[in-house]
Amino acid sequence: MAGALLDVKPTPILKEELDIVIPTIRNLDFLDMWRPFFEPYHLIIVQDGDPSRTIKVPDGFNYELYNRNDINRILGPKASCISFKDSACRCFGYLVSKKKYIFTIDDDCFVAKDPSGKEINALEQHIKNLLNPSTPLFFNTLYDPYREGADFVRGYPFSLREGVPTAVSHGLWLNIPDYDAPTQLAKPLERNTRFVDAVLTIPKGTLFPMCGMNLAFNRELIGPAMYFGLMGDGQPIGRYDDMWAGWCMKVICDHLGYGVKTGLPYIWHSKASNPFVNLKKEYNGIFWQEELIPFFQSAVLTKECTTVQQCYIELSKQVKAKLGKIDPYFLKLADAMVTWVEAWDELNGKVDVDQQ
Amino acid sequence: MAGALLDVKPTPILKEELDIVIPTIRNLDFLDMWRPFFEPYHLIIVQDGDPSRTIKVPDGFNYELYNRNDINRILGPKASCISFKDSACRCFGYLVSKKKYIFTIDDDCFVAKDPSGKEINALEQHIKNLLNPSTPLFFNTLYDPYREGADFVRGYPFSLREGVPTAVSHGLWLNIPDYDAPTQLAKPLERNTRFVDAVLTIPKGTLFPMCGMNLAFNRELIGPAMYFGLMGDGQPIGRYDDMWAGWCMKVICDHLGYGVKTGLPYIWHSKASNPFVNLKKEYNGIFWQEELIPFFQSAVLTKECTTVQQCYIELSKQVKAKLGKIDPYFLKLADAMVTWVEAWDELNGKVDVDQQ
Repeated sequence: MAGALLDVKPTPILKEELDIVIPTIRNLDFLDMWRPFFEPYHLIIVQDGDPSRTIKVPDGFNYELYNRNDINRILGPKASCISFKDSACRCFGYLVSKKKYIFTIDDDCFVAKDPSGKEINALEQHIKNLLNPSTPLFFNTLYDPYREGADFVRGYPFSLREGVPTAVSHGLWLNIPDYDAPTQLAKPLERNTRFVDAVLTIPKGTLFPMCGMNLAFNRELIGPAMYFGLMGDGQPIGRYDDMWAGWCMKVICDHLGYGVKTGLPYIWHSKASNPFVNLKKEYNGIFWQEELIPFFQSAVLTKECTTVQQCYIELSKQVKAKLGKIDPYFLKLADAMVTWVEAWDELNGKVDVDQQ
Repeated sequence: MAGALLDVKPTPILKEELDIVIPTIRNLDFLDMWRPFFEPYHLIIVQDGDPSRTIKVPDGFNYELYNRNDINRILGPKASCISFKDSACRCFGYLVSKKKYIFTIDDDCFVAKDPSGKEINALEQHIKNLLNPSTPLFFNTLYDPYREGADFVRGYPFSLREGVPTAVSHGLWLNIPDYDAPTQLAKPLERNTRFVDAVLTIPKGTLFPMCGMNLAFNRELIGPAMYFGLMGDGQPIGRYDDMWAGWCMKVICDHLGYGVKTGLPYIWHSKASNPFVNLKKEYNGIFWQEELIPFFQSAVLTKECTTVQQCYIELSKQVKAKLGKIDPYFLKLADAMVTWVEAWDELNGKVDVDQQ
């Protein structure tokens, strides 16, 4: 397998092809720890909350910063699709990036160490994940067959060994796991200490909870589907921004034949958010997800949907038709999905949204 | 989650409820290394090849041994469904067992060590896997949510957190990976040195290559589907016994709502089989699997199939109807599938095969 040899070559760092998107409300001191890994890259900082506040960025980083005023100015009325007072605002960074790849990370995530004590270059592993194919059509029991020292096992169809392009790389978290408020409340002391040395493709037709804390994707392949929804200020829900994006994105990747990987790299998630505050934000989502999951599990896109934009618009129609009855919020969300795609095309050159 | 507490209790060893099935053609010296872990259990040894040969079993093990003469005597004309000169013969052990659980292992598999150097009790881990539920309906990014130190992550629907009963636990191999002949030939020196500390559920609707080297299952839940097919002597194919069983079993587990786990435990696979011999055995399978996989991926069982036997008979009909055109071998195999279920019911008490 040619792919299996990739790991022994140096990983391309894609310096000119990748933006790091960071949503924040505070000074970005956490970047000091990431300096050896992030300094070659361009950062897009999306400042949430009070735009008059000044966010300090450590010296030496190349960045652009957008606050709410900038978002309103750039998007005009379409700014309504970008959430406020919620990390969902990060997707504005995806919109204004001009690069092929995005890595997004939360400002409470630090460099983790592997079991040998070596600091993990999370971004390098994401790049490996994105540059190697995915295998969504059949499960490989030795996990990612393209990693050094691994391959496809006996019984894996040869016709599927080329894999498919990888659209998304979902990284994990040591220390504070990404639990919901009820689990946080029930297990306040639980820490994730298990380093699982694996990358695997989420099979076609399978949904998963995508966390936005440590996430990379190929913007050219899947960018317009990475909308983090309407959350936070003025909305009846929070902390479902990444979940929403993950469900929409996965349905579209499955339809278009792209792969989604999860596993390595780990980051060190430093502190748990307040479970009481989280419960308030998640409350509706906990109920709604029971209907959202079956909706996404059964969502079918027609053959006519051949671009991410077309898929996303089609999905927004299904959201309106089928989820509107849960709560009027979903009617508003469906409209925002359309606005998002319009904003995407406006900023990224209209592709084919008028073929709908 | 109550399930998450299971790991802190001692794992039940199920001494009276589990048989270890070993297919072999040689003296079972490998059992000496497994003594601390296997000695409490009853072994079912299925002697392949020349029945006049005597297989030596180390002292102190409690076992019953069946050679080809025994198989012919016990099954009469139905013995035709049990393969000869192929490890597929192991499924005869599943048939004659009276226990709830089966662990099957090859005689070239030794005790592996975890990264801390501790010897791995593979059977104990299989029991943990089988006694904890599976989560085939939605992927959990922190892997098995029922393990100590893990749980369901944010965005995992609460209605799915009870999981479903686990039918199969598929363990992995350090040292010699389970590669097909072409991969063995291309990578003669490759060894699996990556210890991945994870157990995960293979999602519903996803097929995988099940290896019979290190495998455990709940015989009451899925036994009649664990038929290893017609391989070896007189057949045009070998080394697809476990694959065949895995594909049939997975389709039936998905239909009946049972789970299949893969990952831990590892065993140490000591020596690679001869790739040239393997290529001869696998030759047809390598072609045929390209059509078998789509067949199993699209196989649908009707609502009327409510028992494993009914599902298996229905699947045999579809094999006959849809795979017979690939090669007459599949007509014979479809008949053998029916014979197998008849033999199962004969030895295990007729359940409901006459309701078909």
